[in-house]
Amino acid sequence: MSKQWILKNRPDGTPKDSDFELKDVELPSLKQGEIKIRNKYISVDPYMRPKMSANEDSYTEAYALNGVIDGMSIGEVVESESDKFEKGDLVMNFSGWVDEAIVSEDKAKKVDTRGLPDVYFMSILGMTGATAYFGLLHVAQAKSGDTVFVSAAAGAVGSTVVQIAKAMGMTVIGSAGGREKVEFVKSLGADDVIDYKDEQPVYEQLKAFAPDGIDVYFDNVGGDHLDAALGNAKVNARFAICGMISGYNKSDNVEFENFWQVIAKRIQIRGFLYNDFQSSLPEFESQLAVWLQKGLVKEKHSEVQGIENVVEAFKGLFEGNNIGKMIVKV
Amino acid sequence: MSKQWILKNRPDGTPKDSDFELKDVELPSLKQGEIKIRNKYISVDPYMRPKMSANEDSYTEAYALNGVIDGMSIGEVVESESDKFEKGDLVMNFSGWVDEAIVSEDKAKKVDTRGLPDVYFMSILGMTGATAYFGLLHVAQAKSGDTVFVSAAAGAVGSTVVQIAKAMGMTVIGSAGGREKVEFVKSLGADDVIDYKDEQPVYEQLKAFAPDGIDVYFDNVGGDHLDAALGNAKVNARFAICGMISGYNKSDNVEFENFWQVIAKRIQIRGFLYNDFQSSLPEFESQLAVWLQKGLVKEKHSEVQGIENVVEAFKGLFEGNNIGKMIVKV
Repeated sequence: MSKQWILKNRPDGTPKDSDFELKDVELPSLKQGEIKIRNKYISVDPYMRPKMSANEDSYTEAYALNGVIDGMSIGEVVESESDKFEKGDLVMNFSGWVDEAIVSEDKAKKVDTRGLPDVYFMSILGMTGATAYFGLLHVAQAKSGDTVFVSAAAGAVGSTVVQIAKAMGMTVIGSAGGREKVEFVKSLGADDVIDYKDEQPVYEQLKAFAPDGIDVYFDNVGGDHLDAALGNAKVNARFAICGMISGYNKSDNVEFENFWQVIAKRIQIRGFLYNDFQSSLPEFESQLAVWLQKGLVKEKHSEVQGIENVVEAFKGLFEGNNIGKMIVKV
Repeated sequence: MSKQWILKNRPDGTPKDSDFELKDVELPSLKQGEIKIRNKYISVDPYMRPKMSANEDSYTEAYALNGVIDGMSIGEVVESESDKFEKGDLVMNFSGWVDEAIVSEDKAKKVDTRGLPDVYFMSILGMTGATAYFGLLHVAQAKSGDTVFVSAAAGAVGSTVVQIAKAMGMTVIGSAGGREKVEFVKSLGADDVIDYKDEQPVYEQLKAFAPDGIDVYFDNVGGDHLDAALGNAKVNARFAICGMISGYNKSDNVEFENFWQVIAKRIQIRGFLYNDFQSSLPEFESQLAVWLQKGLVKEKHSEVQGIENVVEAFKGLFEGNNIGKMIVKV
């Protein structure tokens, strides 16, 4: 019997419990080329929210109504009708919010943990870490000596950006909401941290920390942070636009006071998706392994226990509850 | 006696006649290393508007109150105390809205017309043409086969972008206001032209002309055109942000409905200024000379006669009166 979260209603704004349902599903027997996986870790990510809407303009295909919410997960092979996998193999897969799944052999990837904890492959060595790495170094082309501004710096991607930037000798200004998160970002090595719940606008706080301006902005939230970054950019600044959590649950328009600075400062703005960098994953993995080994970068995540709490964990993303990557341990 | 336009008041919104004054000024005698120039052509450009405000955040230094409005001009040397110039030389200079000026020898550049009309060096072979060329090919990296959208396509820069894009085998959609300008842009070779004064929103018109989306957007106006381009971008589209005329006289914020597409479509947005490409001017000049010779690109400008009509010509830029580059013939 597999427990599977399905999408019952398309959420209107912030997702509610009633938009989802946990079902017990009898799995069929394996066909040739298939494996049965028992998931150990399930990922909940902001990008899942737009996929829950019917909006045809979403990044990727919308989830089907009454279908399973798929996404990254790591599990153990418990049965195999594939020559490529055997029982006990640890595999990355995309079965998502389920505890057990039958997956075709070409939809799973064996994980060589190289002695590292397997949960790392859901966070710093997985999609989260790769998004931080490629966004900072490939998209924004940040280099040693740059002043880098990172929003949602206590979050999954942001906290990794902070650490990579520090590992490479950049000056880092993070932004986070509330004292606990601000302290966490400082503990990651950020030179200065903006508290966006503070009375003073982000623009003013950023100006105080970077009076000469910023070279790079790694955007995880859009909105006033992006506008503040535009207003504090140095000439030839590069912005990597990773995902705008603040916009996921809203259909509000985006308003900028400082967009004209794109010309005045010759700013480069580039949006990106993790998927675009598949061919560079080996570079990322070997670099991160080195930094982890040297202690320059540390893995951090928030963990929620049990398949029944997946929706709770997911909703937490939009309440700003998590520190580091949010992972459900099945 | 030199006639010189000075800035009397910093304009509030759209410039008025009373913001300027035409003065008669006695020029001193030449010092060693100086030349006296009698201007033949004077340029009026949108970028001059923000320089009339005291805003410290403008692209470049603000004009001084009661100072001369400087800018690109072409004139003839009428007196020389320099070894580098002799009487009769045609020179590009930056004396601006004046009929006669004394200029240091290092602030003038001899023009070799290569048999082309001298007015070309104020338009297609000057800053206007170079802005079009570098924005389209260096910033947006447009290439043969691309679908290119150009706003203000009847204007100075836009009309040159249309022609260069067609000369290189791109599909071009222009935008202009009113039937006369739309016809003009079509006559330049544009495949389709949006009339932004039409009832149908720019977004819808662009969607109809480019159902598969655009590869490149050359932005001259910002606002709804930029938003429409975001909403109709192909994956990996490149936007060159050249100047936002519509924003020059306003302090309104910019609002986007489609900014999230920056991520979904991995759009690259880059602002640029003509000044950044000085080292590539020889490439531009030789390429344009070839296209002009082959008839692939044609020079177009609007001309106003007389130093006393400079302000009139300048104000016209913001009323959308000009077709092609606006030049005052002294």
